[in-house]
Amino acid sequence: MILSHPDAVAILRKSELFASQSMDILDPFAEQARFHEMPKGTIIFSHEQSAEHFYIIVSGWVKLSRETLDGNEAVIDVLHSGHMFGELALFENMQYVCNAEVAEDAELLFLPLHLLDTMIASHHDFARQLLHVMSSTRVKRDKELEHRDMQSAAQRIGCFLLRLCGADAESPLQLYLPYDKTLIASRLGMKPETFSRGLATLRKHVDLTIQGAALEIKDVEQLTAYTCNACSFTYPCEDL
Amino acid sequence: MILSHPDAVAILRKSELFASQSMDILDPFAEQARFHEMPKGTIIFSHEQSAEHFYIIVSGWVKLSRETLDGNEAVIDVLHSGHMFGELALFENMQYVCNAEVAEDAELLFLPLHLLDTMIASHHDFARQLLHVMSSTRVKRDKELEHRDMQSAAQRIGCFLLRLCGADAESPLQLYLPYDKTLIASRLGMKPETFSRGLATLRKHVDLTIQGAALEIKDVEQLTAYTCNACSFTYPCEDL
Repeated sequence: MILSHPDAVAILRKSELFASQSMDILDPFAEQARFHEMPKGTIIFSHEQSAEHFYIIVSGWVKLSRETLDGNEAVIDVLHSGHMFGELALFENMQYVCNAEVAEDAELLFLPLHLLDTMIASHHDFARQLLHVMSSTRVKRDKELEHRDMQSAAQRIGCFLLRLCGADAESPLQLYLPYDKTLIASRLGMKPETFSRGLATLRKHVDLTIQGAALEIKDVEQLTAYTCNACSFTYPCEDL
Repeated sequence: MILSHPDAVAILRKSELFASQSMDILDPFAEQARFHEMPKGTIIFSHEQSAEHFYIIVSGWVKLSRETLDGNEAVIDVLHSGHMFGELALFENMQYVCNAEVAEDAELLFLPLHLLDTMIASHHDFARQLLHVMSSTRVKRDKELEHRDMQSAAQRIGCFLLRLCGADAESPLQLYLPYDKTLIASRLGMKPETFSRGLATLRKHVDLTIQGAALEIKDVEQLTAYTCNACSFTYPCEDL
């Protein structure tokens, strides 16, 4: 679907790459953007598939994964609105470096990779902003690796909840798990049974109630104290 | 120490960022490069310190790490010759995003960050190459995260050894552990005791002998078969 120019610009502005760019940059992307609704379970692209687009999530959730030789799935990330994916193909021989699948009904903006290529070459401020976005993602990845080593399962679940709360969370806080628990477990690099045990441990240390996907955290500070001591970043994190 | 121009160019050429760049790019970096020998244990920079340089390793090993609030050290990476570090500061308010320390006696090339900034702005091919290097590092990080989830400790140690062997390893293969086992364990996100148990498990499945830092692998293919099935990349990996 073709969006109106202002609608496309408004969506672009919500992503880190385009937020602070001038209309010189935004106009050509807005013109060539296509809007797609995709139900849960849709395969957006597969690992090593030849790449034409990169994507911005308007709503919903998208899972990035890879498959090991013995057939297991490793979840790399689960992204939501404002996030971009598929752009790395531009630097990897125009092949996607992972699988992308709709994890919860999603609306996506499709954008041509060749336009990204042209705009990087012609506008150095834009290239610099892409470098900045890639640097942030790298720091985020380093943090994830750190958490795998230094945090307990319960603390990693606590961190996941804090990120859902956002930086200005007030106690008591109600929130909903955005996608199913099996995927949350994979996202956090845990087996479902480790996730269940981790959640049980977390509830021993932090006052929280769960009913289905609905969750109430009585005291956000209590959660922060329990979770963030085993992390090298201070709450609220910059990338919440 | 100031190097001769050809020596500085030769070192730059060994790093992924500069390998295929023209003399337009290499000349100013070679002119401003400074060569330093640093003994094991030297702190090169600290997390959040204000940044002036980025670095290329000529020889030796450098550890990148961060410290958690409760005082534990998370090792992000351990790098050797040809690798670059400290460059992310350019996109993170001119502050280093981690600590860097000499892990084994090292020779380093110091390069000014402001020059990197200028050259990115003025040479879009160079900006694109930096994007490419950052993309490769991101894919590598995703792989590390995957390994934390999908591979056993023994397989992760096997993967570490395969990377030391390189792509053209012939059986039987002698090699030396490049730095001490405690750091290897941290690098792989393991406690020293997990590392010892993992190594014992690996030796049950793969024919290898260890004496101090010296190691002999009888059959590289046997090691590959044991290690690489739990990975989504095929051996030999592109980033060996």
